[in-house]
Amino acid sequence: MLKNKENISSLDHESRLDQGDHDAIRLWLRLLTCTNMIEGALRTRLREAFGTTLPRFDFMAQLARVPEGLTMGELSRRMMVSGGNVSGIASQLEREGLIHRAPLPNNRRTFCVKLSPEGEHRFAEMAEAHEQWVVELLGHLTHDDHQRLMSTLKQVKSGIAESLE
Amino acid sequence: MLKNKENISSLDHESRLDQGDHDAIRLWLRLLTCTNMIEGALRTRLREAFGTTLPRFDFMAQLARVPEGLTMGELSRRMMVSGGNVSGIASQLEREGLIHRAPLPNNRRTFCVKLSPEGEHRFAEMAEAHEQWVVELLGHLTHDDHQRLMSTLKQVKSGIAESLE
Repeated sequence: MLKNKENISSLDHESRLDQGDHDAIRLWLRLLTCTNMIEGALRTRLREAFGTTLPRFDFMAQLARVPEGLTMGELSRRMMVSGGNVSGIASQLEREGLIHRAPLPNNRRTFCVKLSPEGEHRFAEMAEAHEQWVVELLGHLTHDDHQRLMSTLKQVKSGIAESLE
Repeated sequence: MLKNKENISSLDHESRLDQGDHDAIRLWLRLLTCTNMIEGALRTRLREAFGTTLPRFDFMAQLARVPEGLTMGELSRRMMVSGGNVSGIASQLEREGLIHRAPLPNNRRTFCVKLSPEGEHRFAEMAEAHEQWVVELLGHLTHDDHQRLMSTLKQVKSGIAESLE
């Protein structure tokens, strides 16, 4: 009975699905491994070269992109790496004179955060080294592999966004 | 003077490098975004469906792969996701009866951790759902795109490993 046509085809379907599942998990773990390796290298180098952390760098990078400043809520939403307490980082960087916090003119209960001139200067130095490290870590791909990877990851991104809708 | 041959060629070289740098950063941020989106979706679903966290799931997943058990040090090294305190997770899971801890026979100061039968059962349920979610999130790629992505990420991995040597 197990050998009739319907059962064989349903078995094929099952094995294909299992194979597919397994593949998706392998892809996810490979993606995660690559990301973790790069993140780990950047964390180590930022600590060794600048005595700073990746969340602090990320915090300053978000501000460097928006010279008019960001609210704390907006900053939290934009942070790319985990492991940082956003308000703790803000207090540290403020004490070190690298950022300024000021209430918004139209809503004095909301604070707007900006890099100070010293913070801009310090960030520019770190960003240059960071860019060089990322080139070292990822720059070995050929131009074609790089372009294909960018385009496949774009598909991955839209696929994820669709499945989250 | 800026227009003599040597300066033009060095300018070209510079712009190419800048372009390259910029591209590597864009690739890194895209990789990080995809990873963060998947991780975020898995965190939310594990919480909603099983009232658990990704680090707890990751901890159990590492144990499920090694039925003979792992030491706490080995477990820490194998964890794939951040945000979890490994000894805190071990205490929780032990209280809930999902893992057992016992001193190693040859070294009574080192503890070996294993899933309990209840832990194996609970993990199997979560792993099935987790696999299904990962298929939903990543399964939309064509077979060819999937294969190419796996192979390019393998190159990325070895390139990173080489640049870390």
